[in-house]
Parts: sequence; structure tokens; C-alpha cells
Amino acid sequence: MTNINQRVVVELVERSYPIEIGSGIVADVAAALSRLQRVTKAMVISDENVATHYASVVDASLRQAGIEFSLLRVPAGEVSKSAANAEMLWRKMLDLGADRSTVVIALGGGVVGDLAGFVAATYARGIPFFQIPTTLLAQVDSSVGGKVGINLPGAKNMVGAFWQPIGVLIDIDVLTTLPIREYRAGLAEVVKYGMILDADFFQFLCDRVEPINTREPNVLAEIVACCCQLKADVVREDERELTGRRSVLNYGHTFCHAIEAATEYGAYLHGEAVAIGMLCASRLAERLGRIDADVTQLQEDLLNRLELPTKVPENLQSEDLLALMQRDKKVEHGKLRYVLPTRVGHVELVDDVQPSDALAAIEASR
Amino acid sequence: MTNINQRVVVELVERSYPIEIGSGIVADVAAALSRLQRVTKAMVISDENVATHYASVVDASLRQAGIEFSLLRVPAGEVSKSAANAEMLWRKMLDLGADRSTVVIALGGGVVGDLAGFVAATYARGIPFFQIPTTLLAQVDSSVGGKVGINLPGAKNMVGAFWQPIGVLIDIDVLTTLPIREYRAGLAEVVKYGMILDADFFQFLCDRVEPINTREPNVLAEIVACCCQLKADVVREDERELTGRRSVLNYGHTFCHAIEAATEYGAYLHGEAVAIGMLCASRLAERLGRIDADVTQLQEDLLNRLELPTKVPENLQSEDLLALMQRDKKVEHGKLRYVLPTRVGHVELVDDVQPSDALAAIEASR
Repeated sequence: MTNINQRVVVELVERSYPIEIGSGIVADVAAALSRLQRVTKAMVISDENVATHYASVVDASLRQAGIEFSLLRVPAGEVSKSAANAEMLWRKMLDLGADRSTVVIALGGGVVGDLAGFVAATYARGIPFFQIPTTLLAQVDSSVGGKVGINLPGAKNMVGAFWQPIGVLIDIDVLTTLPIREYRAGLAEVVKYGMILDADFFQFLCDRVEPINTREPNVLAEIVACCCQLKADVVREDERELTGRRSVLNYGHTFCHAIEAATEYGAYLHGEAVAIGMLCASRLAERLGRIDADVTQLQEDLLNRLELPTKVPENLQSEDLLALMQRDKKVEHGKLRYVLPTRVGHVELVDDVQPSDALAAIEASR
Repeated sequence: MTNINQRVVVELVERSYPIEIGSGIVADVAAALSRLQRVTKAMVISDENVATHYASVVDASLRQAGIEFSLLRVPAGEVSKSAANAEMLWRKMLDLGADRSTVVIALGGGVVGDLAGFVAATYARGIPFFQIPTTLLAQVDSSVGGKVGINLPGAKNMVGAFWQPIGVLIDIDVLTTLPIREYRAGLAEVVKYGMILDADFFQFLCDRVEPINTREPNVLAEIVACCCQLKADVVREDERELTGRRSVLNYGHTFCHAIEAATEYGAYLHGEAVAIGMLCASRLAERLGRIDADVTQLQEDLLNRLELPTKVPENLQSEDLLALMQRDKKVEHGKLRYVLPTRVGHVELVDDVQPSDALAAIEASR
């Protein structure tokens, strides 16, 4: 028997969709789909690692329900989020007879979710999209918000769309077999939610470092549901990132994207770069007199206890990182906008930051 | 002095946008843009033929207004609507520092509009898009509705999005220098509007074949404005093609797309294939007892007087066309839906058409 023990509803202007969270529920994917809409055909997009572990479970469920489907695999890793792979998937789906009623199922981490979501958003001008995130990062981040996309050389997520899933299935069991490094990377985004939106949740994390580090399922289910709910509240207020409200989710991400681009998406997992990026942003806030050093220290302590990287690596030049930051999608009319904390649990958008201050914040994070 | 003599407002759920129609108004593009929003940077996407004629006029206007811009060219022709060209444009725009406030200006026919619109819809998850359609087809079709996209091998517009422009500038003067074949191809879509929505407009066209054939500017301005208004009324009711209302615009297009795919987009201009496709659809309606032969005859006579092709070419096998039609984007749960006339000025959606009837309609159109 499977066990759904948390449910978050993401409420959007045009429609809402459910996130079901539980143990072993990936085995019931066909039932979850049929609760959402009539499904006769599906394209399951996955990466080679994830497919090895979970494709057979999904396969059995869809087969038993009489849903025609194909499994399309891409190599694991950030490099798969390319225009070439998007085109490969579009062509395969066309050859397999995918039509407007075909559901794209993303079975994998953030890379698979973003790529599959972009393909779903653009194939036949948009077809239904269902997510089964298999990493902690994807569960707390990609499953809410509808941001899908691919990378350009040197610019992460530079091409994409807003495309909301019809539903999300989060199986907590997959976290117990997740490589420890990937698990820890996801925790960085979890810490981010506490910093930007909820001081109580930040304290909850500080108080439960041990069960988090041993991956206690009930604590994980609670954490994932809390993050999804926090993000859903923000996304509901600003679905297409127009008012600025949604930008709070980018805390640490301007520095993070530059670090990832400078290392060609090869040295750090996204969450690891987020951890470093948050500390850079926090030190920038210190320089601007917005917070005291103890707010940065609280984050650094928690990230250290979760065994995440906290330092900008020595081999990256600060000037190079700054130049990459200027290519960020958040730039408008040539100006970069930073997301900076005012205390634990609250951040603000800040324009007109001097490049010299950003540079100093990077230097202080080595 | 330039002269705006028609204005159509496309009213959408989220926002509306204006279509300005007049003589020589492309010279005032910067003023038209500034009436819409603050613009500091633009990417002008055009094809090599159009750029030769009009880029200097656009260049002068943007330069005088102090708008920083770059001209990005693609080869002329349907083959440019490729994933490879989309990726090339995304990369160039990134290198040129395009950000979320940069406006993509499509200067060209339908190919340029669809490709540039797709690039605008997906770059940084969507940036502003402005259209200057330079063919009759693009003026009466692509300037309203927000459908943007690229082709896959054997499947036209298979990848794309709904992305509405912030405004459209239609310069009637460009039609007087348009190659006659392209001009006539656009007239097929004009006839379509009469057939699907407005018997009076169909009669208006029958009564003015001579000034149409001599490209009389005032008649052209009236025709373009009428087509834009008719399409805007349909799109307002069904912006994302969800209710079926918008499908009426696809009259003749299921057959048309198959003819274009079978000839690898090389033998016919889109409008020419639409002319043939409408007659196939009309004969299918005859076979199903929905109209008498005189309704087909009225269309064939008008299309002949406008010197458009009206016959399915002998070298295309009917069975091959039928197979290509099954790959159409309008297929849902494996079923094709046809748009068929009930009289001049009205069409209906018809499911459950026997393939043998579609085959016979193709045969009757040779």
C-alpha cells in the first residue's frame, strides 16, 4: 500500500493543481494522472540514472492502466538542458505520434523537469505536463512555479517559458537512495525558504539538523510540504514574475548562476552554488548596512552543519563573476536587481548596488 | 508625412494591443513603439530580402529616437523557421546583451514573424515583441492571434507558443512592391475570412476583383483592416484555442499543411496551399451533404479570378496526404477534426469524418 500523507494545492489565476506527497506513491502514478484528466498517451522523459531506478515502477503503473507510453531518456547532468536535446525530444515525440492530448511526464531531478517542461510548453504550442521530481531540490523548487527551460552556453535557464504542470507526485522514499551530495544540495534551497519567508521554519531546521542529516522520512515529508506551501504562496501572488514579489525566490541566485556559469555547470550542483550565493548576498547586505554579521553567521553555521560548501572557490576571479552576473535574466534596462535579507525570514529587492560592493561581498566570501 | 488611416484594437483577457494600418508608417516605427512602452534596446529580426528594402527606414527611425538596436538576418523562406535558427538567434541576442526589457521587432513576412515571435516568447521566458508584417499574408494572418513557432521536419508549426505582440504596424505601401505571387498568396487567406465569418465581405471581394488585382491602396487598407478585425473577434473569444471557436480559422489548413509537408515547403507558398486546401475542405463538406456544389463553385471562381492555384497537384498521392494530415497539431486522442462550411460566411467543426471521404475530396480536387 502507498501512503499519501501531505497535499499542497498550488492556486493560480487560471487554474490550480495538486502536489501529492507521500511514501511509495510513484507506484500509483496512473491513478494520480486519472484523477486529473483523461490520459490515453504519455511521453515519460527521464535521465539514464533515474530511469534505471524508477522507470520500471512507472512503466508497470501506466501499463496496467492501459495508457500508451514511450520512455525517452537523456544523459544525466546539467549539460542535458540544451537546445539540441529539446529538438531531439520534439522530433522523437512527433515520430511517436504525440498530439495535444498527450501528457509529458517528467521523471527525474531539476534538469529533467526543466527540459521536459520546456518541451511540453512548446510542443504543439503546449501540451499537458506532469512532474515526478526525484531529487530534494526538484521536490522543493521545480515542482512549484512553472518555470521551465534550457541553458545557453554561459547562461543558465536563458531560454524557457512559464508552463504549469497539471499535477505533481512527490515520493519521499526516493530521497533515501539519493546520492548524499545531491541530497545536501537540495537542503540549500530548503534553508533559502527559511531565510526569505519564514523565521520559524529556519529555526525548525536549526533544531532538526540530526534527523535531517539521517534523512528521517517524517521530517522530510514535513520539510518538503512546508517548502512547497511557502513557494506556492509566493507564486500565486506573482505567477509570471511581473510584480517583483516572486523575485524573493532568487535569493543567492544571482551569485549562484555566475558561479555555475564560470565553472561551466560542472564543478557544483545547483544547490551547492546556492549555498555559496546566499552567503555572498548576505555579505552584500552587511556592506550596505541592511543586516548585522550575525545574520550571515546563522546561515553559515546551518549550512556548515548540513555539510554544504560556503566559500567562493579561489580559482574564480571576482571580476569574471561580476561580468557573468550582468548577463543574468533579472537584468532590466541594463540594471541588476539584488535580493538581500533584512533579517532571518525576510528579504527585499535592492536596485542601484555599486559593482564595487558586489565585488567586495564576493571577496569576503572566500 | 505618414498617414495612419485604420486602427484595429485586439482585445485580450490580460491586455489589448493596437494594430495601426496606413501608408508609409514604417518610417515612424520608433514613435509607434514609444506610444506602447519605454524602449531602450531592440533586436530587429528580418530576412535578407526584406532587410534590403526596409531595414534602412527602420534603422533611421530607431537611431533618431536613440534606441540601441541590432539587425539580425535569416535567409528568406520557410526553411528558416527551424530550431537551428531559433538557437542561433537566442545565442546572438545573449551576446548582444538582450535582457527582459529588450523589444524583438519582427520585420518581414510570416516566416520572420513566427520565428522572431517564438524567439521572443522563449528568450528569458518571454520578452516584448513588436510586428511589422511586410506581406499581405502576414498582415491579415500573423498580426493577430499570437501564434508563433517553428517547423519540425514534415510538420509545420509543430513547436511554438502563444505570445501576443505589444503592437503591430501595417504599412500598406509595402504591398505595392511585393512580388505578385506572394501578394496573390495572401489573398487566399483574405478569401478565407469571407468564407468562414462574413458573407458580405466575401461579396465585397467578388465585387472588387479588379482593384484588388491592381493593388489599389484604399481597397487594400480596407481589406486588411476588415480581416484583422474579423480575426481579432475570434481570437478574443478563444485566445489559446481551447474552446474550438478559434479553430474556424483553420478552414482549409488541414489539407493545406499536408500539401506543404508533402512538397517539403518548397513548391507552394502557404496561401497557395490554403487556396487548394479550402476547395478540398469544401468538397468534403459537399460529400457529407453539408453544402451544395455551388458554394464550392463560388470559392473556385473567386480564387481563379485572383489567379490562385485551385487543384491538388497530380504528383502527390492522396494516401500520402491523408497520412500527413494525421500528424496535424489539431489531432487529439488520435482523432482529426475538420473545419467545414455550411454556407458562405459560416463554418463548423466536424468530428468522425471517414478517411475514405477525405480521400475522395482530395481526388475530386485534382
